[in-house]
Amino acid sequence: MTRYIVIYDISDDANRNRLAEELFRIGLTRIQRSAFTGDLDPQRAKDLVRILQRFIKDPNDVIHVFRLGIRDWENRIVLGREWGSLNEKIILF
Amino acid sequence: MTRYIVIYDISDDANRNRLAEELFRIGLTRIQRSAFTGDLDPQRAKDLVRILQRFIKDPNDVIHVFRLGIRDWENRIVLGREWGSLNEKIILF
Repeated sequence: MTRYIVIYDISDDANRNRLAEELFRIGLTRIQRSAFTGDLDPQRAKDLVRILQRFIKDPNDVIHVFRLGIRDWENRIVLGREWGSLNEKIILF
Repeated sequence: MTRYIVIYDISDDANRNRLAEELFRIGLTRIQRSAFTGDLDPQRAKDLVRILQRFIKDPNDVIHVFRLGIRDWENRIVLGREWGSLNEKIILF
């Protein structure tokens, strides 16, 4: 299982909402309005990318999928309130 | 030098635009409307986070900063046209 981050810019509202619903359906967790995360095995990661391709419909649409080491995930910095978590997590330097 | 990804949800248009300008000023590259990337040493990464904190003004505002291994960066998947790159990069499975 590997941690993935999906972030997207989808111009059409309905298309963007359908994408979010699809990411929930796949079992990912929303961490920002246009960013989801989840642990996927290689086959499910391929399935995810195949699904995401369907949502690229406009020349301005773009979706990034990042694979993240678990250490890098745990060391993420969150400013403000992360969606999908119960606690506000603000890291101050 | 370590690769960082900054993604943000900032509700106020002016505040969000100022944040984007600031990220350009710091030398980061825009890869999506609300996502930037760049290589930073530890001190500049701390400076970045300190700067980002100023832009959290609304309860819904949230910014994530992810540190990424260079291999994970290179293995990112881009669907559609990545901002800041000259070539369309579509990876098909």
